[in-house]
Amino acid sequence: MPASPLQPINLDNAAASPLWPEARQAMLEALSLGNPSSTHAAGRSAKQALERARGQIADLIAAKPAAVHFTSCATESNAWAIRGLLGANKRLSGANKPSTPHVIISAIEHPSVLSAARRLELDGAISTTTLSVDAEGFVSSGDLEKALTGQTVLVSVMAANGEIGTVQRIRELAGVARSHQALFHTDAVAAAGYWPIDVKAWGVDALTLSLNACHGPMGAAALYVREGLRILPLLEGGGQERGGRSGTEPLAAAVGLGVAAEQAQKRLSQGIAPLAALRDRLVRALRQGIEKLRINGSTQERLPQNAHVCIEGVSSESLVLGLDQAGVLAGLGSACNAKAMRPSHVLKAIGLSDEEAAGALVLSLNWMTTESDVDQAAAIIAKVVEPLRRVSALTARIR
Amino acid sequence: MPASPLQPINLDNAAASPLWPEARQAMLEALSLGNPSSTHAAGRSAKQALERARGQIADLIAAKPAAVHFTSCATESNAWAIRGLLGANKRLSGANKPSTPHVIISAIEHPSVLSAARRLELDGAISTTTLSVDAEGFVSSGDLEKALTGQTVLVSVMAANGEIGTVQRIRELAGVARSHQALFHTDAVAAAGYWPIDVKAWGVDALTLSLNACHGPMGAAALYVREGLRILPLLEGGGQERGGRSGTEPLAAAVGLGVAAEQAQKRLSQGIAPLAALRDRLVRALRQGIEKLRINGSTQERLPQNAHVCIEGVSSESLVLGLDQAGVLAGLGSACNAKAMRPSHVLKAIGLSDEEAAGALVLSLNWMTTESDVDQAAAIIAKVVEPLRRVSALTARIR
Repeated sequence: MPASPLQPINLDNAAASPLWPEARQAMLEALSLGNPSSTHAAGRSAKQALERARGQIADLIAAKPAAVHFTSCATESNAWAIRGLLGANKRLSGANKPSTPHVIISAIEHPSVLSAARRLELDGAISTTTLSVDAEGFVSSGDLEKALTGQTVLVSVMAANGEIGTVQRIRELAGVARSHQALFHTDAVAAAGYWPIDVKAWGVDALTLSLNACHGPMGAAALYVREGLRILPLLEGGGQERGGRSGTEPLAAAVGLGVAAEQAQKRLSQGIAPLAALRDRLVRALRQGIEKLRINGSTQERLPQNAHVCIEGVSSESLVLGLDQAGVLAGLGSACNAKAMRPSHVLKAIGLSDEEAAGALVLSLNWMTTESDVDQAAAIIAKVVEPLRRVSALTARIR
Repeated sequence: MPASPLQPINLDNAAASPLWPEARQAMLEALSLGNPSSTHAAGRSAKQALERARGQIADLIAAKPAAVHFTSCATESNAWAIRGLLGANKRLSGANKPSTPHVIISAIEHPSVLSAARRLELDGAISTTTLSVDAEGFVSSGDLEKALTGQTVLVSVMAANGEIGTVQRIRELAGVARSHQALFHTDAVAAAGYWPIDVKAWGVDALTLSLNACHGPMGAAALYVREGLRILPLLEGGGQERGGRSGTEPLAAAVGLGVAAEQAQKRLSQGIAPLAALRDRLVRALRQGIEKLRINGSTQERLPQNAHVCIEGVSSESLVLGLDQAGVLAGLGSACNAKAMRPSHVLKAIGLSDEEAAGALVLSLNWMTTESDVDQAAAIIAKVVEPLRRVSALTARIR
């Protein structure tokens, strides 16, 4: 699509992305349905729509529908997973008394995971170990092995990082946790819809999913909880979601999430190579057009829709604003930290200095991105960088 | 509207009600917007839409927009209010040490309030006093006065009960709490949109609101928190809602909630008498058409859209199912308990025996209900009751 103020080239999909037309249509219809908890016919139609969506989401992650629970957002799913799994699963110390639970997370988790763990630690309810990552953003299974103790109840490592695109070796990490009788939760928000997920093959006990970044609606997310595993609710009351998550369901958004999952599954069944090739084309063009460009994250195990670059001599903020005016939407960094004018905790964790992280740009494609989009975007980015660098150099000299 | 299987007469609005066309249209448009936390133009439009909705909700309750926070559902608002206010507001005992906080609730609160308090009590974090209600469902300010102690941090009494329709004297109750330095939260879900709310005049510190029952969408709700009052977040992470409630906002639902608030405000400004008159017309017709009919709740301070009757000699379940088939949607009881085949805790609390509560029926009108609707509905209800009573009497005799 052409770059115009009305229809910019969208390379900022990490926090929100255009709805699938099919999801939009299904949501429209769902707005006329009743409350899924009502007993009469209107309620039953709503319930059927909700269960259809649950099945579509289950299919995307190779789970049974009964293991999928609706929530309002990934932040809620993550908070529920961490507090709920800890609340329902105690480990006994030598004296057969519950010990202070130990939780292991990684340094590049989403703020909602970091905050949930920090809050519990502040309250004295748990002790926490934060695993560092290597320069490409990988958590090492050796490090996890060393961090596990007899008190470790839960390990939470994200499936993929939406900022630098690195996809963790979840199967390996979950296996290490299991061999130490610890539960394993993964925040799969960045991976969902762009990377094949199989909760059984991965061996995870719980998985957070939303599709804001993959043509799904805001307002609904899900938490997979392995069948038979106990979890305390975060929200209690009316007993919806089989008592797991009370509260009126966000029906229209849940229906949209289901259709988005189905659409993503269709794309994934055809492979992620074409999308990765588009992203590689973008990166190649940026390398050719811009000097002193750094590519972050893994070169191998990487989300196909994601590129993360640092452009020396410009600031992320002026770059994103300049690109916005020139018709390219790009991201500053962690979607939820988008307004924080400091290097993200992810870039710090992979070892970038403040200076190196200054010109960071998250470029996230989507399933609708075209060759023409990436070619035009690369040209526009190069064009926007040049004068910004001149201004920046001038400012540096004056100072 | 005519009673047909395709377009039944809707007297079951307590859990979900038809969307205002204006809200539907606004939600449609919002589905094309970006993430309110994004920095570029698409994000700014989304942010503007969210802030417009916040203003509309604030207007409905006579609050400042900054005091209104979006959540996903009233259950979340209630859980957040109770845990968050307790977490941030300690009272000191004589020895200047924090004492175990004391919380006062009423016996007819929504399950989400009851559960939130019970969970904290089970965890040993609080002690709780549950105030009984009189036969009309009123909490007595004298009882509240007696229950308040030097350790009472929070009182939570609902503004109105969605099942029996009784509207509490919140201003009086909040005043009693304030005079004992306790905070006052009210769950105003049943009142919202059908009863004038003024958080300043009422003197409440926090107020839960959703509009599922008043032509608003599922998937968004709000919590008012008096400005300057400290509250810990329930969901932490990206720092949305000024740090109060992290998580991607349910944008479309929030926009729909705002428009529904605006529409409700328009109706309320013309007074609730016409709606109450329709409800009274329904009750009169039912009294005339059905023998041994009991009206529950207050005759004076009562939600204008609500009627609650108990019909002797039939069960709620068979009645609701029979009415559904005959083209009238009616409610079993507490919206969120709709599937529980036992008398609601509310009917128990106003002193009904299991037998008296057996034929309970919640009839909830909405702003679109017409005279013809209530006339037809009353006739249909009488017609459905008759054979059910005969079957029921026969069964009793056989037993």
